[in-house]
Amino acid sequence: MIVLDRINSPEDLKKLNIEEMECLAGDIRNGILTRVNALGGHLGPDLGIVEVTIAMHYVFNSPVDKFVFDVSHQVYPHKMITGRKRGFLNPLENFEITGYSNPKESAHDNFIIGHTSTSVSLATGLAKARDLKGEKYNVVALIGDGSLSGGQAFEGFNNAAMLDSNMIVIVNDNEMSIAENQGGLYKNLAELRLTKGATVNNFFKTMGFDYMYVEEGNDIEKLIEAFEKVKDIEKPIVVHVRTLKGKGYAPAEENKEIYHWQLPGFLDKKEDTSTSFVENYYTVTNDYILRKQAEDKTVVAISAATPGAYGFTKDFRDKLGENYTDVGIAEEHAIAYASALATNGAKPILAIMSSFVQRTYDQLSQDLSLNNSPATILVHWGGITSADATHLCVFDIPLISNIPNIVYLSPTCKEEYLAMLDWSVNQTDHPVAIRVPSGQLVSSGVEDKTDYSKLNKYEMVEKGEKVAIIGAGNFFGLAKEVKQELKRQFNINSTLINPKFLTGIDEEMLESLKAQHSLVITLEDGVLDGGYSEKISRFYSQSDMKVLNYGAKKEFTDRVPLAQLYERYRLTKELIAEDVSKLIKIEVI
Amino acid sequence: MIVLDRINSPEDLKKLNIEEMECLAGDIRNGILTRVNALGGHLGPDLGIVEVTIAMHYVFNSPVDKFVFDVSHQVYPHKMITGRKRGFLNPLENFEITGYSNPKESAHDNFIIGHTSTSVSLATGLAKARDLKGEKYNVVALIGDGSLSGGQAFEGFNNAAMLDSNMIVIVNDNEMSIAENQGGLYKNLAELRLTKGATVNNFFKTMGFDYMYVEEGNDIEKLIEAFEKVKDIEKPIVVHVRTLKGKGYAPAEENKEIYHWQLPGFLDKKEDTSTSFVENYYTVTNDYILRKQAEDKTVVAISAATPGAYGFTKDFRDKLGENYTDVGIAEEHAIAYASALATNGAKPILAIMSSFVQRTYDQLSQDLSLNNSPATILVHWGGITSADATHLCVFDIPLISNIPNIVYLSPTCKEEYLAMLDWSVNQTDHPVAIRVPSGQLVSSGVEDKTDYSKLNKYEMVEKGEKVAIIGAGNFFGLAKEVKQELKRQFNINSTLINPKFLTGIDEEMLESLKAQHSLVITLEDGVLDGGYSEKISRFYSQSDMKVLNYGAKKEFTDRVPLAQLYERYRLTKELIAEDVSKLIKIEVI
Repeated sequence: MIVLDRINSPEDLKKLNIEEMECLAGDIRNGILTRVNALGGHLGPDLGIVEVTIAMHYVFNSPVDKFVFDVSHQVYPHKMITGRKRGFLNPLENFEITGYSNPKESAHDNFIIGHTSTSVSLATGLAKARDLKGEKYNVVALIGDGSLSGGQAFEGFNNAAMLDSNMIVIVNDNEMSIAENQGGLYKNLAELRLTKGATVNNFFKTMGFDYMYVEEGNDIEKLIEAFEKVKDIEKPIVVHVRTLKGKGYAPAEENKEIYHWQLPGFLDKKEDTSTSFVENYYTVTNDYILRKQAEDKTVVAISAATPGAYGFTKDFRDKLGENYTDVGIAEEHAIAYASALATNGAKPILAIMSSFVQRTYDQLSQDLSLNNSPATILVHWGGITSADATHLCVFDIPLISNIPNIVYLSPTCKEEYLAMLDWSVNQTDHPVAIRVPSGQLVSSGVEDKTDYSKLNKYEMVEKGEKVAIIGAGNFFGLAKEVKQELKRQFNINSTLINPKFLTGIDEEMLESLKAQHSLVITLEDGVLDGGYSEKISRFYSQSDMKVLNYGAKKEFTDRVPLAQLYERYRLTKELIAEDVSKLIKIEVI
Repeated sequence: MIVLDRINSPEDLKKLNIEEMECLAGDIRNGILTRVNALGGHLGPDLGIVEVTIAMHYVFNSPVDKFVFDVSHQVYPHKMITGRKRGFLNPLENFEITGYSNPKESAHDNFIIGHTSTSVSLATGLAKARDLKGEKYNVVALIGDGSLSGGQAFEGFNNAAMLDSNMIVIVNDNEMSIAENQGGLYKNLAELRLTKGATVNNFFKTMGFDYMYVEEGNDIEKLIEAFEKVKDIEKPIVVHVRTLKGKGYAPAEENKEIYHWQLPGFLDKKEDTSTSFVENYYTVTNDYILRKQAEDKTVVAISAATPGAYGFTKDFRDKLGENYTDVGIAEEHAIAYASALATNGAKPILAIMSSFVQRTYDQLSQDLSLNNSPATILVHWGGITSADATHLCVFDIPLISNIPNIVYLSPTCKEEYLAMLDWSVNQTDHPVAIRVPSGQLVSSGVEDKTDYSKLNKYEMVEKGEKVAIIGAGNFFGLAKEVKQELKRQFNINSTLINPKFLTGIDEEMLESLKAQHSLVITLEDGVLDGGYSEKISRFYSQSDMKVLNYGAKKEFTDRVPLAQLYERYRLTKELIAEDVSKLIKIEVI
């Protein structure tokens, strides 16, 4: 850490010579490895962008010049240079430094960013405001080649080209998205690399940008030379930089997809853990898809650039061959594509993360649900988590469940999940989304023979009295705990309900509860506002039934430990029992 | 109607010679003018695409070959050829023929489409399903140059290029979006037109498509020749066709923006109606923006290609000059751009239609709200309407009001609207959306001096007892009517509340109602599921307060007359009074 020790701001970096900066690059790489090994995080993209970041800070004058780092997967070196190295060198002591761009941490960050393909859009707004105020400085967006496939990036390029002023887009081309790049555009990037930027057919030029190519994207001197040329330029320009993803850490250079992101402890990990196979929701999904596809050649698994997040392994994708589509970072297209596949008689199964569902609302509504196309959407990771504010997974229920036609299912165990999945794939009446349970696989051991074509039929798992507990998906386990707690503390033999459906309520069952119950409890693993619980409150709003809704508050939480969130939202059996005791007392009076 | 008389299906068209098809083009143009003059609708794009459509049906074999018409603004000629001419020649008798692509009407339509930039995505899915099934036919997407700027179109192109099979995209280049085209891409289209497709720098080729240019896009013979060349091609190709928007109707050729869409009766309209100026929410908005911009050079009005829908007239845009941005059809970028403008100290005011808000959910959440950027979003046309299923405006409240940080305001009159708008533009604490009232301007005549920085403070307009009526925005008028009706029928002196805020509830006021009220009525001009009413039901769910929520059911309605929808949703003073009488009786017992 010889050089990094002396760097507390970009001012310090500007005093270094090339050799010192090369040393600094090594120090920064150690910082990246140290942090990811301690806390987990993005590895490959950060290792590849070290020299670019050093050169950016050497040539430009942040924070007067404004940088926007797309999706933040390349922001670690920038953080180390801008006074936040403690989050990398001593990550366990300084984990308040996030893995994402965040203006609350530093004036060198202009936005909180965690979703992709936004940097050109955002930089355009910064540049336009600058021009209106009559100010002069550089606005620099850094975007990875993978992020280019997202529609918002394209919309940003198209509009940015109209600026008659400074706007620099550095395209960090490491020849990879999270997995392999997908799409026609990438042939053009390959052609540009092959010709060292000389080919006339140039995507960026067709978008109205000037263009410069830098072959040596991990060579500080060459990068400085390039950036000096575009600094203070008075028009929009793309600097297309070829870098090596994973640079400086051999396993990451070799296996770019696996090392895009790593869990804590990866440095010490044994090579092969495949002998200890554990069944989980990913493996049962993949088994199902492969089995189904063997009998039906129209089954297509789809992901939008993040197959690893859903256990769509290389092996699984290879087995599916033509029956797997990675559309690139393009969630809007993914949903429309799935809808059209279903319309034309195929059986699409699209996996998507809860946090990314929100990138394709209009397509869910118009292309899919309005057309009532029988595609299957697997929503992964839904639920309250300790995630970064940019990757919360609590908004998918309000988002999906208030769209007409689509059916949103919430299984509580493997057997239910597979029954729902199989029903969805075989039926042709509705678009269906399934909120795949998170965490360890739960097995009931009993085959689920429910007919899911009877929509909005809740399952009364145990019939009791006084209190009915409705626990959807992940929170069915909590519902069972609450039931036990009410028995233990108050000798109440409560009713336990698995709602299964998030898009509608079982009016008949809810009506029937009125006879022997005075309180209904709903447990929602997501934000309460707009979720399924409120539909139940609305149902009972003209009756004497009391309702207690539990779920997340409408707020952007940021790496708050899960136990703390459960406490805050009163999502423990003890706190719920306490609330019940108050209401039951009122009832007794 | 000499030729059109004989055309009941594409089969009939295939028997015509060129001269007859040219006659048919004239007949179809008459049909377009007749329909739009009777029912209103899209004029310019349909007039321009007549010959292309005739040639498509001559060369290809719909419905075996599958056509996808982007945004459906060019679908009228196709409808006339495919057995639906009665909706054009006798539109008042046959208005069940919609202005949009709809498979329920005809096997020649593959999707219900009304939002833009989706055709390439959807066609890619159709083509992929075809390939998996081992079938052979042409899949043809027709997309206008204006729609190309939408991110989903780009995502579609990128993925479609990976097909190793037939996929034909006809780009209908009439050199216009709804208003002027905006963005760098359009320079490339201009270059392609100028060089008759010969320039090497070619957007479509950079996306991995083969390419063909047709200069004479209103010449049936040339078009047939071109389409014959690409028919049954085994790779993705773009046929770039230059057409004349408004072709054949001189006023539409001359004034392309005004005649993109017309109201009924336009053929008989007097030339100048400007003498009878009527103040409306558009004019007060424009006056405010111009006034504000005169004192603050950072004020920027923004629209995404539909300025006319918000009264952003040519004159208004010209006056603003650099302080107006049309980002093109690019709602995602529009929100991110507005967020960044606000972040960098400018004052963006973005106008968007309720139905299009859903095209940019992730940007509203991540780029705007998570970053807490003080941009102002004007949501127009929100409310229950008799619109086509593709343009419903009832989902904006669930969509916006369940996102943290953003403040969604619902003014009931001009004075409130202007006070909210001015507060929003001057404050720097929150992103703010305002649901601009629809319909005729309402003026209270009293300046609104509310301090809107005190969030979620409802206004108790009249204090009464027993029943409290909460009517937001457009429905505040109905709330007043209900109050009068309850007085008249039951002599109840009810409480009248204007909530103003849709993103949160006034817990203090709602709590205070418990003392002298047993029933709260909420009126929501939008879908109830996930809206503001359910939040109020949830608030009261542990109390004895009864709540009646009124609003739209979660459903895609399709050109249902408004009075019928109000009846269905019981949104009249009489029906509400009837419901109240039942509940009040229960209370009395």
